[in-house]
Amino acid sequence: MTVDRDSLTELRDLARAFAAERDWGPFHTPKNLAMALTVEAAELAEHYQWLPTGADHELDERKREGIRHELADVLLYLIQLADQSGVDLRAAALEKMELNRLKYPADQVRGDARKYTEY
Amino acid sequence: MTVDRDSLTELRDLARAFAAERDWGPFHTPKNLAMALTVEAAELAEHYQWLPTGADHELDERKREGIRHELADVLLYLIQLADQSGVDLRAAALEKMELNRLKYPADQVRGDARKYTEY
Amino acid sequence: MTVDRDSLTELRDLARAFAAERDWGPFHTPKNLAMALTVEAAELAEHYQWLPTGADHELDERKREGIRHELADVLLYLIQLADQSGVDLRAAALEKMELNRLKYPADQVRGDARKYTEY
Amino acid sequence: MTVDRDSLTELRDLARAFAAERDWGPFHTPKNLAMALTVEAAELAEHYQWLPTGADHELDERKREGIRHELADVLLYLIQLADQSGVDLRAAALEKMELNRLKYPADQVRGDARKYTEY
Repeated sequence: MTVDRDSLTELRDLARAFAAERDWGPFHTPKNLAMALTVEAAELAEHYQWLPTGADHELDERKREGIRHELADVLLYLIQLADQSGVDLRAAALEKMELNRLKYPADQVRGDARKYTEY
Repeated sequence: MTVDRDSLTELRDLARAFAAERDWGPFHTPKNLAMALTVEAAELAEHYQWLPTGADHELDERKREGIRHELADVLLYLIQLADQSGVDLRAAALEKMELNRLKYPADQVRGDARKYTEY
Repeated sequence: MTVDRDSLTELRDLARAFAAERDWGPFHTPKNLAMALTVEAAELAEHYQWLPTGADHELDERKREGIRHELADVLLYLIQLADQSGVDLRAAALEKMELNRLKYPADQVRGDARKYTEY
Repeated sequence: MTVDRDSLTELRDLARAFAAERDWGPFHTPKNLAMALTVEAAELAEHYQWLPTGADHELDERKREGIRHELADVLLYLIQLADQSGVDLRAAALEKMELNRLKYPADQVRGDARKYTEY
């Protein structure tokens, strides 16, 4: 047991153990995990749907806690789906950011809502 | 600049810089980021919608790449939304897993599809 | 008051009256309604996420009722969003089916999972 | 063939014929249709994600067409899912509106963002 492990690896291992202890493997197909992920993402979005922007002063303590829990649920399903798919999330994010850098050159899209709309 | 930084912190900082270089801050309200997150989660789910389980042998190279990119997009919006909300994603995931541990005791829900259905 | 009105028009008028009685107009921007629609669609999907196919024999009475209510919620938000957007839902569906007919000629995509996957 | 058929029934029959001509029945399990519905709902939401409200003056012709097509896609999957589930959409919507009427008495929730937030 080390203390300097990377958080994404640490959470992956904890999520693996959690599912294994409950024999939930058979339910955790990539398809089911992807579906569960969209459900949790929508539960997160639900907190914001009637708010102007979701800025902190628009929230109360109950909403802040709900948002924190839903953020966690999305992350946990995301980590499990990446795990089932053999994807290294950090590497994938770095690769995608590089692609985004080429697709949206800063000097062409800066502050431009219309271009960003097509993002 | 260190090489041993935690991946969630590293990606948060890169995403911050990416948005700042493009003056995209005004678009990145929590509400908008939550909406973008559900969109990316659905684009991820789209890859699986007509497949039996999404297991690796059901995929081709183009689909594997698409899945990897969408996993990255979900993670990047999740990190930005947590950042705008002042939430430490790793701490939130650990907190939520502890709550799940109490809610779904292993010896009561083991392999039980019906209880899991209510998860 | 007529008895032979079309259901989509009838429900649109009832939804308009429901929102007007509650002064909910200011919340019902197209953006907010679209967000609420994705939330209800996900709540509907949640009923199926750990089931093999969602066929009737996999459901119990509580789940059937939940599905019926969520189907209704999706329809009601859809009707309100179309209404706010000046879209005639029936005409839009007929137009889209005609486009789908051209895009997916029956003799080319029949029973073909791979082509359908790209649908 | 009658000309006064209800739109929801008419579209259901057309969607049935469209799927039957393509032997797509095996793909159209309730679970798969529910997943496809969330995907289309998110594609609809995508049009609004960086806009202030989605009001007509914020849109251009290309976006209006995209929104119209996505509204149609959501309706068509919704109708097919209700059909597979043996649910009469009009009756379900009327039932749900009656429940909403009891849950949100007009004189208690009028214009009240906080109560509506909990909606």
